[in-house]
Amino acid sequence: MGMNGAETLVRTLLAGEVEVCFANPGTSEMHFVAALDRVDGMRCVLCLFEGVATGAADGYARMADKPAATLLHLGPGLANASANIHNAKRARSAMVNIVGEHATYHIKHDAPLTSDIEGVARPFSHWVHTGESSRTIGEDGARAIAAARKLPGQIATLILPADTAWLEGGPVAARPATPPPPAVSDEQIAAAVELLNAGEPTLILLGGRALRATELEKASRIANRTGASLLAEGSNARMERGAGRVAIGRVPYPVDAALKTLQSYRNIILIGARAPVAFFASPGKPGLLAPEDCLMHQLAGKEDDIAGALDRLVKAVDAGATAPTLAPLAPPALPTGEITPETIAETLGALMPDNAIICDESVSTGRNFFPATANAARHDWLQITGGAIGVGLPMAVGAAVACPDRKVIGLQADGSAMYTLQALWTQAREKLNVLTLILANRAYQILRGELTNVGATNPGRKAIDMLSLENPTLDWVKLAEGQGVPAQRAETLTELQDAIREGLAVDRPFLVEVVI
Amino acid sequence: MGMNGAETLVRTLLAGEVEVCFANPGTSEMHFVAALDRVDGMRCVLCLFEGVATGAADGYARMADKPAATLLHLGPGLANASANIHNAKRARSAMVNIVGEHATYHIKHDAPLTSDIEGVARPFSHWVHTGESSRTIGEDGARAIAAARKLPGQIATLILPADTAWLEGGPVAARPATPPPPAVSDEQIAAAVELLNAGEPTLILLGGRALRATELEKASRIANRTGASLLAEGSNARMERGAGRVAIGRVPYPVDAALKTLQSYRNIILIGARAPVAFFASPGKPGLLAPEDCLMHQLAGKEDDIAGALDRLVKAVDAGATAPTLAPLAPPALPTGEITPETIAETLGALMPDNAIICDESVSTGRNFFPATANAARHDWLQITGGAIGVGLPMAVGAAVACPDRKVIGLQADGSAMYTLQALWTQAREKLNVLTLILANRAYQILRGELTNVGATNPGRKAIDMLSLENPTLDWVKLAEGQGVPAQRAETLTELQDAIREGLAVDRPFLVEVVI
Repeated sequence: MGMNGAETLVRTLLAGEVEVCFANPGTSEMHFVAALDRVDGMRCVLCLFEGVATGAADGYARMADKPAATLLHLGPGLANASANIHNAKRARSAMVNIVGEHATYHIKHDAPLTSDIEGVARPFSHWVHTGESSRTIGEDGARAIAAARKLPGQIATLILPADTAWLEGGPVAARPATPPPPAVSDEQIAAAVELLNAGEPTLILLGGRALRATELEKASRIANRTGASLLAEGSNARMERGAGRVAIGRVPYPVDAALKTLQSYRNIILIGARAPVAFFASPGKPGLLAPEDCLMHQLAGKEDDIAGALDRLVKAVDAGATAPTLAPLAPPALPTGEITPETIAETLGALMPDNAIICDESVSTGRNFFPATANAARHDWLQITGGAIGVGLPMAVGAAVACPDRKVIGLQADGSAMYTLQALWTQAREKLNVLTLILANRAYQILRGELTNVGATNPGRKAIDMLSLENPTLDWVKLAEGQGVPAQRAETLTELQDAIREGLAVDRPFLVEVVI
Repeated sequence: MGMNGAETLVRTLLAGEVEVCFANPGTSEMHFVAALDRVDGMRCVLCLFEGVATGAADGYARMADKPAATLLHLGPGLANASANIHNAKRARSAMVNIVGEHATYHIKHDAPLTSDIEGVARPFSHWVHTGESSRTIGEDGARAIAAARKLPGQIATLILPADTAWLEGGPVAARPATPPPPAVSDEQIAAAVELLNAGEPTLILLGGRALRATELEKASRIANRTGASLLAEGSNARMERGAGRVAIGRVPYPVDAALKTLQSYRNIILIGARAPVAFFASPGKPGLLAPEDCLMHQLAGKEDDIAGALDRLVKAVDAGATAPTLAPLAPPALPTGEITPETIAETLGALMPDNAIICDESVSTGRNFFPATANAARHDWLQITGGAIGVGLPMAVGAAVACPDRKVIGLQADGSAMYTLQALWTQAREKLNVLTLILANRAYQILRGELTNVGATNPGRKAIDMLSLENPTLDWVKLAEGQGVPAQRAETLTELQDAIREGLAVDRPFLVEVVI
């Protein structure tokens, strides 16, 4: 026979410019794996846990602005992958998940690995389809790519029964067209202009692709022209910032701080952002963070033509000649003294190289990093977007695969790093240019605050134990070296600075455990 | 106020004899965590990844014959937990999952961690319910316990919105009654007798609770009386075996071997077992493993009264006075020579102490373990039941919590160990009596065979790379020590035997990496 369905699918993915596959294959995916040998052009990155594969695909999509594929093994493999699919869905990252399934005629036997894969996929996917025939798997693949590439990005999950992979394949499908994002209406522009000109305190809240450097400059022109303020959502897929770019803050995570930040605004214009809400409800506190009497105007959603909307708004408020406010290069001085959240942040700001990619899952310890790097060398800042911890190390894998010429710096809390520590092995195998800082507070520190928030002000031993990562202490140097990543522990600020310099000097993975 | 909903639920769990909680909590579960301080009697075991919590609950249920609770954080936490819930569902283990959810009134805001939790739960749970009020959360908890305890066991998932935990709780519910398993009909017994007396080659295929020592003795009496053969299913939740017990084989995993094992039977009587099917379909091979003309008689399903059915069948074939065949204590001699799958298995058989619990996720390397231990000291043998690799290390946690006076021995392939290696930290923290053997073949070895099975007889570099765990090599000594578990690497048979002796001499966790 000619090519089988698996080969048709691999060739279809390549035709659709899906050129990287983060894979954790099993038996049902063996034909797909075998097809990789016969087709040039697909970079396969082996991951030792499925959440690493999808977190990497998320990081890749954020930096490449196109989807990677993942290769996953039946329902349980997809389930393991789902927490980071959730984060990617919230980031609006493009992703094509290929999930192996039993041969169509074998499903009825309810063999041990059988499960409702579509049911597993649905809560976290925008698009789900089960292939029915090897003859049409090319079309299925093209539809998956089209779904994933729907701007700004979607999660497409294609379930691939083994016989649709091993039987004779149909034609390879061409790259599907990507329709441009819908333009916002003139009325929406006019309504925004009206709010900006109303002479009341107005916030432009930005999210999604409004946080790229070019769009931020437009927003800054508008703000400078009209007196509006700029702010980004609390969690962002990718923000271009640092020297030469527009520096904006974010809506704070703690509810009280967020309420305070937003309390003075009478109007909020949302561009690629959603109305700000509390991450969690707290007894007696509001879920909506903007003042009750604040006017909220959605100018553009994440899926709309944000660049076009900003262009039109610049024109409508006559801000074309207004200069944006760009951050000067003024990194913090290299600090001395003790290791504190502040001195770690200043160290990062002082030492980070030009055009780095920051993967930020630093959770509670890391709230100092963002302000301390506003005037550091230009960089991209990638955050956990869906609150499902365990995306940081994998996201760094994907960002490094997408941008091999740039340094990736992972800011990683220890508790969340443990969910997907297998990503370090992939960093080592692929020789990725990633420096990881493990901020070892040895606790689910954020939960200690939450325990207080819920009214448990004097927790007992059992509650405290549930939030402590001590006894035994995790040794991140061994956990990294055990997976082939060189590592050092820093217990003083000098050790930290030396270790970071060492990690920045190589273009390979390196890990620093910062004891705080 | 009096107790809140969280405290009502904890007290209800205790009333229902759910006394262990494997927890990976987040913000939405903080009231539940806080309630643990106020209520005595619940043992809380912190896990650093959700799949560890559910795999541990599975191991616990298999050994304790009652459910543990798990505490999980919203949809992504449940997703991370689901692969091992799948294994537990296939094992018919009892489990009560408590999954935190946003406060009822906060869900509509679609905060970052929001997802369709019931949708995530449904594919892997027998019973799913979302609490609606703190006043009725006690009843909800009792219903969850009742569902979990439906014999032999079910997966019950109770979703707990934060406000149902923090508002004033209703009454604590009493332990629900557990109805006895349904008796099989007289006609089913008569049909089995007819097959046994037909004078044709007949197999009694056993599974579920038919594999406990008492039931196996009954089956052996029947077999000895009638000339039937005995065999167990390929993957079993728990088998009591070793010296003084009935030794039976299992249906082999490879399709060809399974077909050969079953080809001579004309009748198969299923007791707690299902008709044997191939784990995966292979091109050109059958999915049903028994001969096409074989008569298949389901005497008792896993949920039926298996003990009663065996008693009645013993009587019906007049086997009450027939002696069962019990394995003598005749462990293998301690081998010498090289490390091979055979010598590792013989070493285990020679050294394992009385009444050990074996957690077997040895996959390809481990096929020798089972025969080599048939005449070793008595023990329980727990297998991966759902094919979702990554249950072994967590299962050992749960078995050790259930049976603190017994040695747990984990037989663990390296590839599958990586999925849930965080279980080692919990072993260290809880000072569990677990000896883990990591069988480091440094490959997804089973997939190499599968690649050949699917016709890729001459795989290229890319395919081979997808199945290799080398480059870099995992260092399991560091991965264990990094989590507080002492470990040794064994590269010779003498080193292996010394290391196993060292691990058996302590009642704490110990890990041996066996390089093969």
